[in-house]
Amino acid sequence: LPQGSKDLVNARQQVAEGVGLLCETAAELGVKLALEPLHPVYAADRSCLTTIDEALAIMAKLPSSLLGICLDVYHIWWDPHLAERIAACQGRISGFHVCDWLVPTRDSVNDRGMMGDGVIDIPAIRAKVEAAGYEGLVEVEIFSSENWWKKPADQILSISKERLFSCC
Amino acid sequence: LPQGSKDLVNARQQVAEGVGLLCETAAELGVKLALEPLHPVYAADRSCLTTIDEALAIMAKLPSSLLGICLDVYHIWWDPHLAERIAACQGRISGFHVCDWLVPTRDSVNDRGMMGDGVIDIPAIRAKVEAAGYEGLVEVEIFSSENWWKKPADQILSISKERLFSCC
Repeated sequence: LPQGSKDLVNARQQVAEGVGLLCETAAELGVKLALEPLHPVYAADRSCLTTIDEALAIMAKLPSSLLGICLDVYHIWWDPHLAERIAACQGRISGFHVCDWLVPTRDSVNDRGMMGDGVIDIPAIRAKVEAAGYEGLVEVEIFSSENWWKKPADQILSISKERLFSCC
Repeated sequence: LPQGSKDLVNARQQVAEGVGLLCETAAELGVKLALEPLHPVYAADRSCLTTIDEALAIMAKLPSSLLGICLDVYHIWWDPHLAERIAACQGRISGFHVCDWLVPTRDSVNDRGMMGDGVIDIPAIRAKVEAAGYEGLVEVEIFSSENWWKKPADQILSISKERLFSCC
C-alpha cells in the first residue's frame, strides 16, 4: 500500500495494469517475467499479490511467453485450494522456491527455516508443481537473520544439499 | 497442526467433522456456535481455518440456527475476494471484531493496533458486514502486549470509544 492509503482494491488494480505495461517492455527486450504471490502477512507493506488465484487472474490476460508464475512454498503452503491452484498453473510455472515455515516463527520476514525444520509438506507441493509441467530448478531461499545467515556458507550449502534430497 | 504433522488437508477435514459433531451438542444445549477464520499467518499453530471461503464451505452443510461466522477485520482484510465473500455470509454473521493492522507489525500475535492506527479500511468492511445483514455488536479486540495492554483501562476505553465513532 502507498503511504497513507488503505485502498487494497486499488493497489491490486494498479499492479495488474503495471504488469501489463511491463510485459510490453519485456516483449521488446525479449525477456520473460514471473509473478510471485507473497504470503498474506505481507499484504500491507511488501506485496498486495497474495494468492496464486490473483496471479492467475492477471496472467490470464497476458501471453505465457511473456509472463509466468513463481511459486515459493513459504508463501503458498497455507492455501486451502492449493492443489487446484497449482494444477491451474499448468505450463506457466517459471520458478520454484523452497524453505520451511517454523513454529514458532519469531519474525515474519527473516525467520524462515531450513527445509525439514518446519511444517511445510514440501515433497507434496513439489509433486504438484512438477505435475503442472515445471522442469526447472528448485531454488533454496532462506531469509534467516538470526540463524542461517550467521553460519558459514560451506555449512549452509552442505546442509541445503542434504535437505534438498531428504526433505524436498 | 498436531505436533509432528504436516498434513494441513487432513487437519481441515478434522475441523469440518469436529464442527459437525459440536453442532449436535450445541443443538442439545440450545446454543449457537460461530466459526472465526484466522489470518493465514496462524495456519501452522493457531487455526487451519484461514479464510471466509473455508468457513462458508463448512457452514453450507449445517443449519444457520446452529452455526454462524464471526468476522474480525484483522484476519480478513487482505482477502482478494473480500467483498464477494462477506456478501456470501448474508444472514449468518454472528460477530464482528475490530482492531487495526500496524505497519510494521512487530509480532504477529500480540501487536495489533487501535482502530485508525493501521492500514485496514474498517468503515468499508463494516459497511459490507452490515449490508450482509449483521445488526450485532462491534467488538474491539486488540492484542497488544507492548502497547495497549500497558496503558490504564480508562484510557483504553475512552480512546476505543472515540475511535469506534471516528474510524469504524
